[in-house]
Amino acid sequence: MRAPNDAFGAFVPGPPVFATGAATGPLAGLGFAAKDLFDVAGLVTGCGNPDWAASHPPARAHAFAVQRLLDAGATLVGRTITDEISLGLLGRNQFHGTPINPRAPDRLPGGSSSGSAAAVAGGLADLALGTDSGGSVRVPSSFSGLYGMRPTHGRISVTGLMTQSPSFDTVGLFARDPALLETAYGLVLDDKAIPGTIERVMIATDAFTIADAPVREALQPALAKLRAMLPAEDITLSEEGLPRWAERQRRLQQAEFSATFRDWIDAYNPRFSFEVGRGLALAALTAEMDLGAERAFRTNVRTEITDRLAGRALICLPTTPILPPLRGIPLSAMGEAGRRITELTGIAGLTGLPQISLPLGEAGGLPVGLSLIGWPGADEVLLRMAREWAA
Amino acid sequence: MRAPNDAFGAFVPGPPVFATGAATGPLAGLGFAAKDLFDVAGLVTGCGNPDWAASHPPARAHAFAVQRLLDAGATLVGRTITDEISLGLLGRNQFHGTPINPRAPDRLPGGSSSGSAAAVAGGLADLALGTDSGGSVRVPSSFSGLYGMRPTHGRISVTGLMTQSPSFDTVGLFARDPALLETAYGLVLDDKAIPGTIERVMIATDAFTIADAPVREALQPALAKLRAMLPAEDITLSEEGLPRWAERQRRLQQAEFSATFRDWIDAYNPRFSFEVGRGLALAALTAEMDLGAERAFRTNVRTEITDRLAGRALICLPTTPILPPLRGIPLSAMGEAGRRITELTGIAGLTGLPQISLPLGEAGGLPVGLSLIGWPGADEVLLRMAREWAA
Repeated sequence: MRAPNDAFGAFVPGPPVFATGAATGPLAGLGFAAKDLFDVAGLVTGCGNPDWAASHPPARAHAFAVQRLLDAGATLVGRTITDEISLGLLGRNQFHGTPINPRAPDRLPGGSSSGSAAAVAGGLADLALGTDSGGSVRVPSSFSGLYGMRPTHGRISVTGLMTQSPSFDTVGLFARDPALLETAYGLVLDDKAIPGTIERVMIATDAFTIADAPVREALQPALAKLRAMLPAEDITLSEEGLPRWAERQRRLQQAEFSATFRDWIDAYNPRFSFEVGRGLALAALTAEMDLGAERAFRTNVRTEITDRLAGRALICLPTTPILPPLRGIPLSAMGEAGRRITELTGIAGLTGLPQISLPLGEAGGLPVGLSLIGWPGADEVLLRMAREWAA
Repeated sequence: MRAPNDAFGAFVPGPPVFATGAATGPLAGLGFAAKDLFDVAGLVTGCGNPDWAASHPPARAHAFAVQRLLDAGATLVGRTITDEISLGLLGRNQFHGTPINPRAPDRLPGGSSSGSAAAVAGGLADLALGTDSGGSVRVPSSFSGLYGMRPTHGRISVTGLMTQSPSFDTVGLFARDPALLETAYGLVLDDKAIPGTIERVMIATDAFTIADAPVREALQPALAKLRAMLPAEDITLSEEGLPRWAERQRRLQQAEFSATFRDWIDAYNPRFSFEVGRGLALAALTAEMDLGAERAFRTNVRTEITDRLAGRALICLPTTPILPPLRGIPLSAMGEAGRRITELTGIAGLTGLPQISLPLGEAGGLPVGLSLIGWPGADEVLLRMAREWAA
């Protein structure tokens, strides 16, 4: 058991949190951190907001994923900072502080699983649990130079996890080492793997076009290597434009998280940063809209992309269209950054498909993630490919 | 100089604040409190929000009204809690705590000048400065059983006062004793009094109809006395309905306070209670609307009411349509209460007319305020009438 040296401000303020793992197992001797959305028995799950913590009782049991990692021998070395109630993609938290991005200390770490990414990137933990509803594992993976995956929706139990948007919420993991990521996912994924064989990769040119030039350029070497590894095909993912897909994804997610937090907000009038309070206020308006068209669209696009992948292909795209933004940018710039990010991260959110982010690019010293999206149940395939590519 | 015994949680948390008044003067020996929107030299004006306080420098001079009261011999005994950045009519503050209503400890004190009302109603100060943009002196006067006045817009200098909505902002005072209120206003009002002679009173039946039955009934004895004092006439103030007037008043005020806080919010992403954050987020949408029709309406209704008053008449109405709400009501009930209150308080806000609230009613032990609106510059007339009525 190691005392966390929290040089990167990754952990939730307060006394250190430990839970010792089993003496033997595939993760014996390793340390992991868990986002403050996962229950740890005896502690209040704070969800990155002090008023949430003050208005909820302690958890009675560990969350499913926490328990699995403990059983496999890993020790929980800390609970990590999240964007308030998991709403945010940049990693800012006005109550607990914004974790330092160990790979780019003047840049934001990405969120909402910001502290988990900082803990792993900074060597404070070997592994960390995060959640990804709209990009919250993939974005900090890219910004902090880590391997991280959003699994197929529904393949990891969310028992003991704070809900945000049920039809979007997934449990994700971060690691520096893709072999360790594969091992750890093997402990938490259900048995519904769809192995398939990767016969080709589809390069989503519309996703690359959306990205800023430094991101596109940073990914060219990895893309060249990918083209050498597999037959590659340039495709347009969305004829009507990824921004339109993202608009619908945001509306559907807003309606869900508005419903999640509505009663608590009405009872407690809690404090939020303006960014999060505004997001909740506008989401409440969205929740009153008829979203039948958005739901129908979601069903169609899921079927369409799953058919294109057909158990044989992957989609390649930049994880985010932008480099990690500077710390302390104004709110208006944060909003614009978040909006642009969801144009790429919204794809897997909408479709429920697994997406892995690989730390294979670099732009002026800043990490840039390349992403692969697989068919439903391709999680193991993506993890194996990441390991083999790194080897 | 007295140490403030803050039994009612009226003062801003932190070390006691004092400024000793002049040795002689009309207020010598008296104590006053000032809402945390008024500058006190050497201290940061906090505006009821810790992130505002943390991002602003100390004041270099006392606000105009604070200096005038000090010069007249009153001692500043404390700075009082306000609703966050003065947005609110019920007196809740999720950062500093909600002051106790000394007249109804299980009820809200009214706001946003909540602490000023609590300090005076609880005997911690003889007088207190507040501000009234949308009702923030009149509502706590009514809820806390005090004399309080919103002066004619522009008749008291706002130098050293935190701006909220410039075309609505006024400096107001609270007292238990109407003679003291008259003396204190005499020290801060400019020389543009329009004396006039009160020949009659117009009872705004539409305003009484809006009020809950207990409020209406509580005001009947005072109303009967008023009818005995002056020729009275039942009138309808608004043919189209006071709720429609209040909608326009809220839009105009929202656009102004959104502009006031926009740059600060963009730079700092400050924390607010959800209620206030939502108010600011929705106000930002209003600020983008074309409000030409609202502005024209405002000009017309000002002229129309001023013409009806004609320097000879007053309008009588309930200060608020509701009794002080219970502490701890849910946010949805707070929103509804605030909306209903502005249907009556919005009249003076829209028109810039002076309005005095007199603590002349009682409903089951709860204070109920009766209001008189006068013509522009009738401040002194209203204050004298309040004193003579009480005598």
